[in-house]
Amino acid sequence: MADSFPLPVFGGDSPLYDQLYRHIAGAIQSGALAPGTKLPSKRRLCALAGVSMSTVETAYSLLAAEGYVLAKPRSGYVCAHLLLPAPSDPAPVPEAPQSPEPPRWAYDCSTSAVDVSAFPFSSWARITKEAVYENPGLLQRGHPQGDWPLRAELAQLLAQYRGVRCAPEQVVVGAGADYLLSLLLQLLPEQRTVALEDPGYPAAYAAAALHGREPVPIPVDGQGMDRDALERSGAGLAYVTPSHQFPLGVTMPAGRRSQLLHWAASGPGRFLIEDDYDSEFRWTSRPIPALQGMDRAGRVVYMGTFSRSIAPAIRVAYMILPPELLERFRATFSHGACAVSRFEQESLRRFLAQGLYGRHLRRTGNLYRRKCALFTQALGEIPGVSITGAEAGLHFLLTLPRFSEEELTARAAAQSIRLHPLSRYCHAVPPLPSTVVLGFAGLSEGELAQTAERLKTAWA
Amino acid sequence: MADSFPLPVFGGDSPLYDQLYRHIAGAIQSGALAPGTKLPSKRRLCALAGVSMSTVETAYSLLAAEGYVLAKPRSGYVCAHLLLPAPSDPAPVPEAPQSPEPPRWAYDCSTSAVDVSAFPFSSWARITKEAVYENPGLLQRGHPQGDWPLRAELAQLLAQYRGVRCAPEQVVVGAGADYLLSLLLQLLPEQRTVALEDPGYPAAYAAAALHGREPVPIPVDGQGMDRDALERSGAGLAYVTPSHQFPLGVTMPAGRRSQLLHWAASGPGRFLIEDDYDSEFRWTSRPIPALQGMDRAGRVVYMGTFSRSIAPAIRVAYMILPPELLERFRATFSHGACAVSRFEQESLRRFLAQGLYGRHLRRTGNLYRRKCALFTQALGEIPGVSITGAEAGLHFLLTLPRFSEEELTARAAAQSIRLHPLSRYCHAVPPLPSTVVLGFAGLSEGELAQTAERLKTAWA
Repeated sequence: MADSFPLPVFGGDSPLYDQLYRHIAGAIQSGALAPGTKLPSKRRLCALAGVSMSTVETAYSLLAAEGYVLAKPRSGYVCAHLLLPAPSDPAPVPEAPQSPEPPRWAYDCSTSAVDVSAFPFSSWARITKEAVYENPGLLQRGHPQGDWPLRAELAQLLAQYRGVRCAPEQVVVGAGADYLLSLLLQLLPEQRTVALEDPGYPAAYAAAALHGREPVPIPVDGQGMDRDALERSGAGLAYVTPSHQFPLGVTMPAGRRSQLLHWAASGPGRFLIEDDYDSEFRWTSRPIPALQGMDRAGRVVYMGTFSRSIAPAIRVAYMILPPELLERFRATFSHGACAVSRFEQESLRRFLAQGLYGRHLRRTGNLYRRKCALFTQALGEIPGVSITGAEAGLHFLLTLPRFSEEELTARAAAQSIRLHPLSRYCHAVPPLPSTVVLGFAGLSEGELAQTAERLKTAWA
Repeated sequence: MADSFPLPVFGGDSPLYDQLYRHIAGAIQSGALAPGTKLPSKRRLCALAGVSMSTVETAYSLLAAEGYVLAKPRSGYVCAHLLLPAPSDPAPVPEAPQSPEPPRWAYDCSTSAVDVSAFPFSSWARITKEAVYENPGLLQRGHPQGDWPLRAELAQLLAQYRGVRCAPEQVVVGAGADYLLSLLLQLLPEQRTVALEDPGYPAAYAAAALHGREPVPIPVDGQGMDRDALERSGAGLAYVTPSHQFPLGVTMPAGRRSQLLHWAASGPGRFLIEDDYDSEFRWTSRPIPALQGMDRAGRVVYMGTFSRSIAPAIRVAYMILPPELLERFRATFSHGACAVSRFEQESLRRFLAQGLYGRHLRRTGNLYRRKCALFTQALGEIPGVSITGAEAGLHFLLTLPRFSEEELTARAAAQSIRLHPLSRYCHAVPPLPSTVVLGFAGLSEGELAQTAERLKTAWA
């Protein structure tokens, strides 16, 4: 028995007892040493393997401590029964390109890119260093809604710029808007259906489905979500983008806002989610204050994010909960932790409090306004083109009736330009014919001019 | 009509047109100006309010643009119908103490606190600054699973220290273990029940319930989760803590690990979640390699976190997905963003790659080993006390049969010491009688000695 014992080949850096232990454990796991097999006596193994008694003793006691072998009185150690399940499936790791993926497009008119050339790197680097250095207490667990100083700063910012009415107690900081939407759905288990704009934001449809809810598409007209269709849907929760409807670019006028607030106030447990993305960027008129500021009945959840106004890498978003949902949040998540690092919260607070955010918004606002004007003007020279939704935000719609939507995107793709067909965002409503969605923020002014030139050729 | 027009009282910093616009919009919202009311002519309002024509024109055009008033041919502007819903409920914001809450306990034996005195602040501050400065590209959107360099570093670390077998492709970085558990449940909608250790980690029970799943408590014996009870439960998903069962402190021996792997491999679609929290800290023997490393069938999801090994403020956790779930992740979350800031990912990568993490673990490991010995020895002097589960991790159990669990915690509380009763973690099983759970990491050695002194008095 002991003569046929599988001996290890020693080598490498780890201690001999560890190599011996691993070797025997592996043999037991693989079945090379069958359950019930007696191990050689310690003395015999010393001789067989050419190692010291203490090496063997340490290896055996590890094997016993971890349950690989059982100590039997007067007969030493025997192997335990722990054959592992055979591999049921070779199950190779699916291959994926290493990140970052090589860009597949010369010009990507993505709706989610931003221009980071204006980002104040040296200020941010200084701020993050100070935030760590001056706040050792931030290593400990923070408040589940985010730290108070950042929440106070956000409440003030939103009151001033967006007409949001809230106390810092109502602010919840989270790692991105999609993350907050996920938390919100967990707080609202009774809402089995979610009314969503059609066309609308794909991530909101995905979030509803991932949480086992039924997404109900509600048509968007020239003023935003259709109130009558919403009422008929039977949903108790509606997600809207009043400042800048995604992707149509419609701004919801006060009358429609009032209608939606009436809808929310007229049934028990109804809530509106106001996603105020892109509200920082408006080119032709002043921004309309947030729907939340008009709400007197506590039925609106306001959401916003810094991923567009600063950068996608800054994973900080916020929501303002009405009192009823704030109570639920406290009951549900009071033992959790805020998903944003406290150092990053403190860095952002300093960025806001030192006026750097305001300056950054003014710089990028001017940049985007120029880009929007340049791109729409150049594209407007293509015969037959009409452009809508370019009054605000970082994307617009382009319609060119002499081609189908597929032809528009395919001809652009042949020039290595990536556009999104409007139908991508449509669910039950038929898309406007011959229409594509173009984002411009991620391309430089030179690239926008080149993109427009190529599209002139593509759509000639 | 125009004579009864409510005029604003001008003041403050904002432009006059803005004050006029807000005043009229507010009057329309509140009903002070009823729907259909004609606004004064521009000229007349100039005279009434004592402002310039351009001020009135700007205010009126804003009101019209935002839908507060309608332009009627030959009769000027009339108020739109947009009375807001009356406040249905005063709904005050629930009061909450400002963060940080004042500590209510002189000595908090929390199981989640850590000792941050050993944290290398100056290195971390330097690293975060470098991470921002040297990587402008990190402002753009990153990979939904986290950036490749950090994932490669993690895969190597886990292979070396925990015997985890994985490729960087399988690593998913997320903002905390609870967050990753939430993502995982979203990937497994077919798992309607989740088998959980009893006693067990409260956040896992909470996560299952928040995602609409039924948590099924499975008793834990001296080796970990009971395999037969798991089989009988009918669950297809089980959450276990093999390295250091929470809260009993049991380490699962190889035989039980093998049984659970057999359970997972013997039914279609079964998965084990291995939460390897606390595996970095082991006092009396070397750590057993992770269950994941024994899995040949691709049925184990491995999870770990830096919130205990570095600090709760570092909201970075990771999971290793088996190939089947990796494919689902890619299909489901490929358009999402990783919830951890890319700057923070890069800071952590540097912390690992520069050997600072290893050094930090060695320092804190020695510190915690000393604390554990000091605290258990001092408490062991109390007559009748027995201590279990102190071989590893940052907490242990204490049993003192002459008091009930309630008496133990109440008498400690009277000395301003916070302990958790074991029953807090128990669901269907009866708790061990007269047993409490004590964490020691967050208290200094001096505080631990004082806590033990006070408990001697409390339990005399």
